[in-house]
Amino acid sequence: MEIHKTLDLIREKSPLVHNITNYVVMNSTANALLSVGASPVMAHSQHEVEDIVNISSSLVLNMGTLSKKWIGSMIMAGKKAKSIGKPVVFDPVGAGASNYRTKTAEKIISQVKPNVIRGNASEIMVLAQLSTISKGVDSTSETSEAIQGAKILSEKLDCTIVISGAVDCIVTGNKVNTIGNGSPLMSKVTGMGCTATSIIGACIAVEKNIHKAAVSAMAIMGVVGEKTEELSKGPGSFQANFLDTLHNINSEEIKSKTNLDG
Amino acid sequence: MEIHKTLDLIREKSPLVHNITNYVVMNSTANALLSVGASPVMAHSQHEVEDIVNISSSLVLNMGTLSKKWIGSMIMAGKKAKSIGKPVVFDPVGAGASNYRTKTAEKIISQVKPNVIRGNASEIMVLAQLSTISKGVDSTSETSEAIQGAKILSEKLDCTIVISGAVDCIVTGNKVNTIGNGSPLMSKVTGMGCTATSIIGACIAVEKNIHKAAVSAMAIMGVVGEKTEELSKGPGSFQANFLDTLHNINSEEIKSKTNLDG
Amino acid sequence: MEIHKTLDLIREKSPLVHNITNYVVMNSTANALLSVGASPVMAHSQHEVEDIVNISSSLVLNMGTLSKKWIGSMIMAGKKAKSIGKPVVFDPVGAGASNYRTKTAEKIISQVKPNVIRGNASEIMVLAQLSTISKGVDSTSETSEAIQGAKILSEKLDCTIVISGAVDCIVTGNKVNTIGNGSPLMSKVTGMGCTATSIIGACIAVEKNIHKAAVSAMAIMGVVGEKTEELSKGPGSFQANFLDTLHNINSEEIKSKTNLDG
Repeated sequence: MEIHKTLDLIREKSPLVHNITNYVVMNSTANALLSVGASPVMAHSQHEVEDIVNISSSLVLNMGTLSKKWIGSMIMAGKKAKSIGKPVVFDPVGAGASNYRTKTAEKIISQVKPNVIRGNASEIMVLAQLSTISKGVDSTSETSEAIQGAKILSEKLDCTIVISGAVDCIVTGNKVNTIGNGSPLMSKVTGMGCTATSIIGACIAVEKNIHKAAVSAMAIMGVVGEKTEELSKGPGSFQANFLDTLHNINSEEIKSKTNLDG
Repeated sequence: MEIHKTLDLIREKSPLVHNITNYVVMNSTANALLSVGASPVMAHSQHEVEDIVNISSSLVLNMGTLSKKWIGSMIMAGKKAKSIGKPVVFDPVGAGASNYRTKTAEKIISQVKPNVIRGNASEIMVLAQLSTISKGVDSTSETSEAIQGAKILSEKLDCTIVISGAVDCIVTGNKVNTIGNGSPLMSKVTGMGCTATSIIGACIAVEKNIHKAAVSAMAIMGVVGEKTEELSKGPGSFQANFLDTLHNINSEEIKSKTNLDG
Repeated sequence: MEIHKTLDLIREKSPLVHNITNYVVMNSTANALLSVGASPVMAHSQHEVEDIVNISSSLVLNMGTLSKKWIGSMIMAGKKAKSIGKPVVFDPVGAGASNYRTKTAEKIISQVKPNVIRGNASEIMVLAQLSTISKGVDSTSETSEAIQGAKILSEKLDCTIVISGAVDCIVTGNKVNTIGNGSPLMSKVTGMGCTATSIIGACIAVEKNIHKAAVSAMAIMGVVGEKTEELSKGPGSFQANFLDTLHNINSEEIKSKTNLDG
């Protein structure tokens, strides 16, 4: 897989990525998309989401701070995107933390049929109905346990599942790739998972092979995270350095540093 | 008071802290909670706030960008927390700046009965009905004037009052402690008061003595702020350095550097 | 034009600037206002926007993440401000990206009659009805093309039009000034245009000559951006350094470095 070339494509095309995401990460998500070379747009009103989907190259749905109207907007935008062949990535933030979150995730998945679902191990286990336990928005499960759930989900939903963790897993049916990059500091910065989801959004906007696009995105996240850790004294400097590194990195460095298995 | 040990407890237990807070500070609050060693969750829908309170160790209510639905969510979450013995801290941002804010603060206080209220001197004076003047969200009153109001409020409401300022005051009935740390740059970064409130949320999640927990939180804020100032060239670098310092500081340094009186 | 003195006035008066703005930039906008020396307040509920306008020195309206209720609040606040002589700046984020955005921008403009409208070239072209094309929230038009539109708009609406770009243009009737400062990195940080709008908000709060205030704001943005670029390794460090530089710069440096034409 020549996954590193996805980064070159993003910079060449600067795709417009439509985000309906949570309040906590809107700013950091938009900045990550700009730094990787994409063009972000945030719009959630039901009066405009279909128009914005129309001019965008992909759609990112994230239920981090969900409420009724926003769920309606996500479903409306997601259906529109799928109806005109634009790829959709969904982030089921906190699935399992409340009944409402779990039900909402299931509703969005069944109605939108996203091309990619990215979550932590707990969230993926909950969606695969192998667990009902989740501690807020952080993971309490191991990635290795969640791979089984990811395979079940991927088959059932005909989509790619990405599990973020110390090792990232990208699962499409029986095909499993892992990325062994990243940094422990990434779990000390809010919304790094949401950032990963939006970078997937940028990759599926330019690379039609969804599995390859998802692997590319996690490789970018991992290599940039690893390199950023070396420059940083803590979670605060990590945030600034992450964007600098993401902006400055080239595809050759992604190629040479990615610890890809599978 | 062995207040420094509260920091060790946060890191040992990594408590889940539920925040219903304002749009401006959601990101910085979540990051501060992660850096201190807690686990933040932001959720505001009335369909889930009671479930999230159930799995959390404390609740932070902040009315910085208030609107009708969010007030309802705050009251619902707050009542639930109190009914099952989970501690609540309330931040009456901008009380006095509009009649709506003052009335809302009074409504939340009377219905939720928070364990801690943290505000600047103006906000506390307004709540104690010693003043009706407030300039937006910044303080126009002196901390020394507000201590009298804090004592009245604390007695009346049976809660701990924290007044942030150049010197921080923690008042429970007639017991008054002051923390003489901090940095003038903290007033040049938006939401440092809200960060203080969320750090109180982390401390009351692990320390049952509410007064001690509030003193601990303000000691952490003050010592970290002071140390951060030395590293920073202005409000931008201050933000990044604050999170780095908060992440890296240990309880012994809190102990040795806190200027605690009372 | 002694535009640099506007910065001194902001620091002398520390005006309260009321912002009804989008979720993405609330934090960065508030921080920019604090760094320049103003005092920000964010409030959007229709129960309080008139009260907040009353105690503020200027009003910033920004439709970046628009929805029905927020539009109502913007119009209510804007009308109140104009009725009591407080200046208003409006940012038509993404006008042209959806029919809803274009119609909303026109509605706010016709009902509020803002003193200043700041947009990128595409947005200004759309409002002047010289174009209907917009790619999300980024500009696809050249500033030089948009100046014609700005003149038309300025005459028709009796207001000052600011076009942000590699060169910034400030247009009031036939009077055109340009500022040739700034940095390409500014387009890689989300919300730098929104920051410019809020700095205009700070300038019109203290300088009654609206054209001069707008020129001052763009000079501050440009000189600070240019200086920040020299200190920065990418968009992440740029954000922190921008606030540091904005906080530390003095009016003499603005005076000596501004590339003002017209």
